[in-house]
Amino acid sequence: MTLSGKQYIGNTLSEQGSQTFAGINPATGQKLETEFFEATPQEVGQAVELANHSLSIYRKKTPQEKAAFLERIADEILALGDALIKRCMAETALPEARLLGERGRTTGQLKLFAQVVREGSWIDARIDTALPDRQPLPRPDIRQMHIPLGVVGIFGASNFPFAFSVAGGDTASALAAGCPVVVKGHPAHPGTSEMVASAIRKAAQETGMPEGVFSMVQGTSHEVGMAIVTHPLIKAVGFTGSFRGGKALFDAAAKREEPIPVYAEMGSTNPVFILPGALQERGEKIADGLSKSVTMGVGQFCTNPGLVITQTSELTQQFLKQTASHLQQTPAATMLTPGIQQAFHKGIQHLKSISDVQVLAETEVVSGSNQAAAVLLQSSSKVLTDNPALAEEVFGPSTVAITCDSKEEMLEIARNLKGHLTATIHGTQNDLEENRELIEILTTKVGRLLINGYPTGVEVGYAMVHGGPYPATTDARSTSVGTAAIKRFARPVCYQDFPDSLLPEALQNQNPQGIWRLLNGEWTKNEI
Amino acid sequence: MTLSGKQYIGNTLSEQGSQTFAGINPATGQKLETEFFEATPQEVGQAVELANHSLSIYRKKTPQEKAAFLERIADEILALGDALIKRCMAETALPEARLLGERGRTTGQLKLFAQVVREGSWIDARIDTALPDRQPLPRPDIRQMHIPLGVVGIFGASNFPFAFSVAGGDTASALAAGCPVVVKGHPAHPGTSEMVASAIRKAAQETGMPEGVFSMVQGTSHEVGMAIVTHPLIKAVGFTGSFRGGKALFDAAAKREEPIPVYAEMGSTNPVFILPGALQERGEKIADGLSKSVTMGVGQFCTNPGLVITQTSELTQQFLKQTASHLQQTPAATMLTPGIQQAFHKGIQHLKSISDVQVLAETEVVSGSNQAAAVLLQSSSKVLTDNPALAEEVFGPSTVAITCDSKEEMLEIARNLKGHLTATIHGTQNDLEENRELIEILTTKVGRLLINGYPTGVEVGYAMVHGGPYPATTDARSTSVGTAAIKRFARPVCYQDFPDSLLPEALQNQNPQGIWRLLNGEWTKNEI
Repeated sequence: MTLSGKQYIGNTLSEQGSQTFAGINPATGQKLETEFFEATPQEVGQAVELANHSLSIYRKKTPQEKAAFLERIADEILALGDALIKRCMAETALPEARLLGERGRTTGQLKLFAQVVREGSWIDARIDTALPDRQPLPRPDIRQMHIPLGVVGIFGASNFPFAFSVAGGDTASALAAGCPVVVKGHPAHPGTSEMVASAIRKAAQETGMPEGVFSMVQGTSHEVGMAIVTHPLIKAVGFTGSFRGGKALFDAAAKREEPIPVYAEMGSTNPVFILPGALQERGEKIADGLSKSVTMGVGQFCTNPGLVITQTSELTQQFLKQTASHLQQTPAATMLTPGIQQAFHKGIQHLKSISDVQVLAETEVVSGSNQAAAVLLQSSSKVLTDNPALAEEVFGPSTVAITCDSKEEMLEIARNLKGHLTATIHGTQNDLEENRELIEILTTKVGRLLINGYPTGVEVGYAMVHGGPYPATTDARSTSVGTAAIKRFARPVCYQDFPDSLLPEALQNQNPQGIWRLLNGEWTKNEI
Repeated sequence: MTLSGKQYIGNTLSEQGSQTFAGINPATGQKLETEFFEATPQEVGQAVELANHSLSIYRKKTPQEKAAFLERIADEILALGDALIKRCMAETALPEARLLGERGRTTGQLKLFAQVVREGSWIDARIDTALPDRQPLPRPDIRQMHIPLGVVGIFGASNFPFAFSVAGGDTASALAAGCPVVVKGHPAHPGTSEMVASAIRKAAQETGMPEGVFSMVQGTSHEVGMAIVTHPLIKAVGFTGSFRGGKALFDAAAKREEPIPVYAEMGSTNPVFILPGALQERGEKIADGLSKSVTMGVGQFCTNPGLVITQTSELTQQFLKQTASHLQQTPAATMLTPGIQQAFHKGIQHLKSISDVQVLAETEVVSGSNQAAAVLLQSSSKVLTDNPALAEEVFGPSTVAITCDSKEEMLEIARNLKGHLTATIHGTQNDLEENRELIEILTTKVGRLLINGYPTGVEVGYAMVHGGPYPATTDARSTSVGTAAIKRFARPVCYQDFPDSLLPEALQNQNPQGIWRLLNGEWTKNEI
């Protein structure tokens, strides 16, 4: 397809702005073809109003119709073929295999969500039937289900150009919930964003969805994003990115005349605790696995393990040496954007400037190349206590190893952790039994707790939690990956004493959708 | 029991403050016995820290143990007997029958929540089993459930001294979710609050709950409340009361270093739409029912119908006359506090000062008596458009009737509504079929939509939604009544590749709790 560089406002390509920007190839520093227009606040307003106009039509589409739309989006993304992968490689410097995998994850996610929408039970239908003879007062008939929150504003992420961007998890879950979306494409991959937007627009047209159910605006400025978050018709926001970015959206949303929920996933350091028995049993294997997890995708994952906690011992020193050696051997690679690369190097310099922080692995990269090589730092739990910055995220291929002199020191580190997306424990069965307290503490700190694995790689399924207490996210009650993400964009409503014919189908006596319903306190698919 | 006037900090009665206040009998204006100490910020801190200390023990109590605790609270409240009802009557001027009913609702709620906790499926367990042979990568085993958010701060409401106060819906749902609570008793009924607190404390002791799982502080100042909301160990807040109060808590919570959710239910005007067929068929009956709903509890309900929308006609004028006559005949009654009474009269004066607002019913009350009599005002949809204040809540026994010249005008009023707890439509089957659009619009504005009923009276069941879009609440995604309220105080966490023995019981292969679980996408009680 030919890129237009314009805003996708419903079926209209809009170019009201005068400012433009271009995609940059981070590997070469060169501008890529097509100038993209910065969206104006007016264009954002048009997109949101059109979306709001589409809401009353879109929310009434049957589960089958919404599911077909989601599946068609997946098909239209695949139909973009190699051109999409090539443009995305040029914009992100991510390798082809990774992008093919990420595309598969993105289309698989759309199809899984379509399945959940078609099945229908996600709306959590509840029915308390009337008790006309109850004393002293009759009980009315009350029926509850979830309905869409309204128009959702979604921000594409830099590090997942497919899976957390224009047709990523936030868009898939908002559309699945019945909410129209207005997406802001990430300016690091505007061509990829436009191609995916064209796929969604085509899918909407071909499956008879109302115009405005999807729009996308582009821009490098904060104003475009703020225009979305502060628009009165926007009812929720999805975001994946930096703490600073997510917190700014959260604050703006809280200050609105009508505050709205912001689901910002802002990353974390994903601490990994390695217990002595595991080190003894398979230290070399863990060093290998950990190194791969730290350097995967040039460390540009929200779930990158940035903090490794071990107990001081000969074995630990050997393990860290092995890890350093693996990291040292991992070739430097190009980061997503010059800004991310500079922030990485600045972050590492800051950590290195803390006294009693040793550098175990670090390789010089070609100056001006936008590359990063893996870094391993080491310090003690005492230094960590005095310098909480050591536990803060440096986005990129680095990790900080903290050695503790005792189990109690390790527990104290766990107790002092802020919220993280994940925590990991490596241990033998014996280690784990002896460290149940560590498991208990970590459970209260994270969205996902792993045993003997690596936090990078987030499964899209029914049970995944990609979330966690603040500051990992702005809403610990939610996940941004997995089918439970759909519920973020819905709210409960109940119907009292409605004639059957006026109830939404999902709540009618005959249960025409065949869904699970909590009928007088019992889950059943039965009719009434 | 003898009232101490002190703070209930775990098992300690604390009196560190120097300021005191007394309960006032609103019917007589006289001070009631016992001086109550204003809690100090230090006492709040002690309560929160003790609560946090109890968290790791309380959250691990079995469903059976938590359920027994909730049931015991209900029993201990009943064991307070008549003394509780008498003190509460003196503090609130609410009649005995109402308070007996409200006590029954409160204990029934505790017992229903106990049942939900014991049954166990509310935690939304989800299991995606491992696929070790999946290509290109194996799928790990992922298991999700909900765990408690942490210590919850709860604010007692003035208008429900039992059902939305110390042992009310917020406390019941937080304790059911596994969260320790720190309650601020409402200063309008400090004696009632202390008696109920003593019942909860006794129940905690008798059922082996950790000290600190429940504490209560008292006070008239905003500082006590702010000390709760801003304490770093408080992880969520429940509140029922005024818009100003709820919004202040919401803002303070959003500005914390770690923002936390605030579930503030702030009331609304609960519009009632009366369609022509219904007026013709049973106008007199609706006039009677509406009047009773407006004056129930001296209009001091969050769900009080404060806005009535009809179409201009002879029948409507007759209906309004009948309603006025019913209201005029309803005796004036004492309001909960002098402050509430003054705000009611000020609110009515303000509405009357709007030009083209007619007074259809209003009775003088004895000056200085703290009483209120019912008020019926009438105006047109045009006046409402120009004066949105007409649709804002005046807490007390009043309602504003708006007449429209057309169906389109009625729809326009519906479209312009902000968020409300409820909306009601009175109509014949024919009316309703012809006004499906009105139903559609109202669904997007409220938490509960009623046909041919009255919004006062909120059933405690599985399907109730007592909530709604802002400004009715600060979190439309929740309900503060009904068993779904429990989920407000929980968040999902997932466990990846855990050995069965280290998993929480709810997620173990054998399903020892026998709960519903989403196993690879299918709801089942089967083991794995």
